[in-house]
Amino acid sequence: MLPNSVTKACLTAGAAEGETELNAFDGALLAAGIGDLNLVRVTSIMPPHVELTDRPPELPRGAFVLVVYSSRTSSRPGERIAVAVAVGRAPDGFGVVMEAQGETKAQAEAEARAKVEAAFRMRNLELKEIRVTGIEHRVARCGGVVAACLFF
Amino acid sequence: MLPNSVTKACLTAGAAEGETELNAFDGALLAAGIGDLNLVRVTSIMPPHVELTDRPPELPRGAFVLVVYSSRTSSRPGERIAVAVAVGRAPDGFGVVMEAQGETKAQAEAEARAKVEAAFRMRNLELKEIRVTGIEHRVARCGGVVAACLFF
Amino acid sequence: MLPNSVTKACLTAGAAEGETELNAFDGALLAAGIGDLNLVRVTSIMPPHVELTDRPPELPRGAFVLVVYSSRTSSRPGERIAVAVAVGRAPDGFGVVMEAQGETKAQAEAEARAKVEAAFRMRNLELKEIRVTGIEHRVARCGGVVAACLFF
Repeated sequence: MLPNSVTKACLTAGAAEGETELNAFDGALLAAGIGDLNLVRVTSIMPPHVELTDRPPELPRGAFVLVVYSSRTSSRPGERIAVAVAVGRAPDGFGVVMEAQGETKAQAEAEARAKVEAAFRMRNLELKEIRVTGIEHRVARCGGVVAACLFF
Repeated sequence: MLPNSVTKACLTAGAAEGETELNAFDGALLAAGIGDLNLVRVTSIMPPHVELTDRPPELPRGAFVLVVYSSRTSSRPGERIAVAVAVGRAPDGFGVVMEAQGETKAQAEAEARAKVEAAFRMRNLELKEIRVTGIEHRVARCGGVVAACLFF
Repeated sequence: MLPNSVTKACLTAGAAEGETELNAFDGALLAAGIGDLNLVRVTSIMPPHVELTDRPPELPRGAFVLVVYSSRTSSRPGERIAVAVAVGRAPDGFGVVMEAQGETKAQAEAEARAKVEAAFRMRNLELKEIRVTGIEHRVARCGGVVAACLFF
């Protein structure tokens, strides 16, 4: 196991245009409030004791932070891109985090929600609470979207 | 370096059907006994002092765990999907972990084994011991397979 | 946040042929001096206090190390593959790391540099210093290239 001091998590999302797709992704992370962090990607469990909060924390720039995220970038002007993450929790706090992509926020959020519901059915767990955060963006020249569940 | 308390590793594999490809992946992780963990993906070395054990450990749900894995998902009914991981070790315990994909377990395992042998030739190391774990699955509606080397 | 003892970083790059694309990637990591480490991939910030050094450190084999990297592999004989990473830093030391791909080292390095410049414009930060490391390779049978920023 990786030692960590994770006690909280939050959902966040952002969108941006950029000069390249990597810059658009970077801009979307900035818009989501997590662009100056070093993100370490994980799959996709909410530990039981972790508290879900409403906003990204103030962390030192360059801090190494565990995160579940979904991102999309596109260089096709006019294309609509959307992503979402959803967190479902059982009565004891254990949870599953699921990512989704789509063309609209509503579509991506619905898909993320459905994946969480399926994950709970697969585990025979009661789904007590679900939260979902999505974002959509119409590409002007080169755009990106990101939705993330940050552990901190 | 990341501080860690890794002293053991194990190979495991699983397969599942799911409502989406992400859920099939999630189900394959559950079948492999590692579905309720937060996996942090790494490339692909076995530290010399790490002991290889036979089964996934009992870890706290949501624990952040370092892992090498290979996965495949498919929504094409009838398709055969397979993955494998192989670990080779030198006389002093140093090792290399390699992933492979294929259509059958035998094929994926043979490819993972061949990659480990090539990695040892490349390092001019004697390959004292090799272990390999693979899995195959015929997709019913939407399926996934995963083979992993978990560090704990 | 992940606890870590990161105080230094370095840029490095390597190229190799291999029996498979995964082995070529493994060989490229060896050529870059980081092939016997367990790499944990991160996006893409240079913490302000981290010192940039000139070469990969001597770390224990199998150490888990945080890294930003760009890689390419190809099995098409004659194809030219190149990657680069660039690090830009503001006057206070905060920095951004960007990856790029291309066909030549010069092209990949120019693109990585441009992405760093864009990331600084997006943050309204002064770009005081920039370093870039790239590599190119003409594929014989099966080749790989990697450029990395290693945190240690």
